[in-house]
Amino acid sequence: RVLRIGLIPGDGIGREVIPAGRRILEALPSSLGLKFEFTDLQAGFETFEKTGAALPDKTVEILKNECNGALFGAVSSPSKVVKGYSSPIVALRKKLDLYANVRPVKTVLTAAKPIDMVIVRENTEDLYVKEERTLDDPAYGGKYAEAIKRISARASSRIATMAGEIALRRQSLRANGVSSIHKAPLVTITHKSNVLSQTDGLFRSTAREALAAPRFSGTVNVEEQIVDSMVYKLFRQPEAYDVIVAPNLYGDILSDGAAALVGSLGLVPSANVGEGFAIGEPCHGSAPDIMGQNIANPIATLRSTALMLEFLGAEEAAARIYAAVDGNLEEGRLLSPDLGGKATTEEVVQDILRRL
Amino acid sequence: RVLRIGLIPGDGIGREVIPAGRRILEALPSSLGLKFEFTDLQAGFETFEKTGAALPDKTVEILKNECNGALFGAVSSPSKVVKGYSSPIVALRKKLDLYANVRPVKTVLTAAKPIDMVIVRENTEDLYVKEERTLDDPAYGGKYAEAIKRISARASSRIATMAGEIALRRQSLRANGVSSIHKAPLVTITHKSNVLSQTDGLFRSTAREALAAPRFSGTVNVEEQIVDSMVYKLFRQPEAYDVIVAPNLYGDILSDGAAALVGSLGLVPSANVGEGFAIGEPCHGSAPDIMGQNIANPIATLRSTALMLEFLGAEEAAARIYAAVDGNLEEGRLLSPDLGGKATTEEVVQDILRRL
Ligand SMILES: CC(C)[C@H](C(=O)O)[C@@H](O)C(=O)O
Ligand SMILES: CC(C)[C@H](C(=O)O)[C@@H](O)C(=O)O
Repeated sequence: RVLRIGLIPGDGIGREVIPAGRRILEALPSSLGLKFEFTDLQAGFETFEKTGAALPDKTVEILKNECNGALFGAVSSPSKVVKGYSSPIVALRKKLDLYANVRPVKTVLTAAKPIDMVIVRENTEDLYVKEERTLDDPAYGGKYAEAIKRISARASSRIATMAGEIALRRQSLRANGVSSIHKAPLVTITHKSNVLSQTDGLFRSTAREALAAPRFSGTVNVEEQIVDSMVYKLFRQPEAYDVIVAPNLYGDILSDGAAALVGSLGLVPSANVGEGFAIGEPCHGSAPDIMGQNIANPIATLRSTALMLEFLGAEEAAARIYAAVDGNLEEGRLLSPDLGGKATTEEVVQDILRRL
Repeated sequence: RVLRIGLIPGDGIGREVIPAGRRILEALPSSLGLKFEFTDLQAGFETFEKTGAALPDKTVEILKNECNGALFGAVSSPSKVVKGYSSPIVALRKKLDLYANVRPVKTVLTAAKPIDMVIVRENTEDLYVKEERTLDDPAYGGKYAEAIKRISARASSRIATMAGEIALRRQSLRANGVSSIHKAPLVTITHKSNVLSQTDGLFRSTAREALAAPRFSGTVNVEEQIVDSMVYKLFRQPEAYDVIVAPNLYGDILSDGAAALVGSLGLVPSANVGEGFAIGEPCHGSAPDIMGQNIANPIATLRSTALMLEFLGAEEAAARIYAAVDGNLEEGRLLSPDLGGKATTEEVVQDILRRL
């Protein structure tokens, strides 16, 4: 089986970590029956400055027509509003209908405080529809702006279904001997329907309905948390959570919060997932403060590469990569500076490749 | 000076903690020159069930016409959408134009990880305008709902100005010998303008402008954090923050997150502040799971009472209450169960009254 992977390094440390994703794919043993081909693609703030488009049409076309998946690094957010610029990853998620953003957050099993959760974030709507306008009205004291938060039953239902499927898959991995702190599958629906009774109310009721489907009911436990209290609980009892499903913006916030629990954003992967297509994307940003120093943690990208493979149906290859990364972390000898170590990006990559 | 205080216990443990607020006001030494009068007022889910209104007009009228301030306990959020019910505290904030929600989060100084920050949350707009509608369109797969997020320059400017004033006041308390981990005043503006360039962009630029005013510039340092990264940093480097200013919803989420850092929501106070009026409100909810057991932590309410006094200009009385609460926590002998202790609500209140 040949998989063509688009490589979109983007800005900043994106260019230092995406090559690691390519290398680990190339290093997978041929016994797995996978062959990879790569296409370099452009997107990001620098692309915008050069070409006037943060996400060139050509990038989208090639991803749609030629690729099976992709790896996306990070993009710089300009420090002021730049006319015509808007985030290419947000656009990409919508243009390829990558409706789920899946973010597993997990400590290695030797950790003092074991955490093993996945945040399943709706990836196409909510305030990310970016329908905004700026107005002027004395009733509001002059200038004001409005944005639309849009929640559809369709998107809420399919993201909740994805969360349920992931809860079942995690359970079957546990049954196969992969250890975990969880006993039974649990999906926690996060919302703020005590204030937003219609939008978040729709998310909540649709998610409940989707998770009451026969394939989940009786197996997957379902509970709810209001988003503010979810953040509180996330920090007080992180071990209690298995799969958390949330609308786009809450998912964005919760996944950064969860990343803080495991010590570094440099560890946390994500995949943007649609029908038969997935983009692996480390959760960290372009980190201009450390770029060019060969100290960026490649683990978020390596895990994102594995996560992409999982959603492309190459689960065995994914498991190999996860195990190699866990090996590096458990040994704790070659760690990048964000984890308190002294290893360079290159040293971490080599250590993990060696364990593959 | 006579201050008339409205008492709105609301639901659940609100009824167990609000009386503690009254008692501490009555116990303040007469040498402070303050006299208090109280009016019992109705609001909450039970009030809704009895009268059909969660926030009776009479409550609002009496607060407006007869009171100098108020204490608000907590309200139950119904576990499903109840027709006609909507949160009375959200309505109260808007009806009395209590434009700032001020939430100090601080460890006692003996703590291993010292934290001393205030979250200053805009309290009248953002998604809390609650302008929602439910629609149906095949383009969105059928049923969907929309909510308006509204950000005005006026509200953003006044909340940023409040944040600047609080930063200056904190600095002057430090100059007067009140110890703190902070050296120089800092305001951190939180937003998501990389996605919401118009709404959060307006919050960001207006806040920057307000904090560039002569009374702040050169004294108050100003920085920014995107909300997701703010949650991450809040947990990784909480000691770095002094005053955080945020739109309504981010402020809601951040303050629960910050509460988790100090061990319990039962410690964290808030004040809803307008021109010459303040409502003290513990950050915790109505906690139906522990109501009626006399184990609710009264400290959030006692600190909220002090915070209300501060904003009514009774700073010395406020300082007395803070010191009595800190004394109880530093000694650590009579703590409620949320802090790992065994003391009842009544025992904690008595210990703190004794220290006044
Ligand atoms: C860069 C930004 C637009 C993006 C988001 O908000 O989705 C990022 O925070 C993420 O989580 O991938
Ligand atoms: C109860 C709820 C409406 C309220 C809010 O969202 O403001 C609460 O979470 C708070 O922080 O006071």
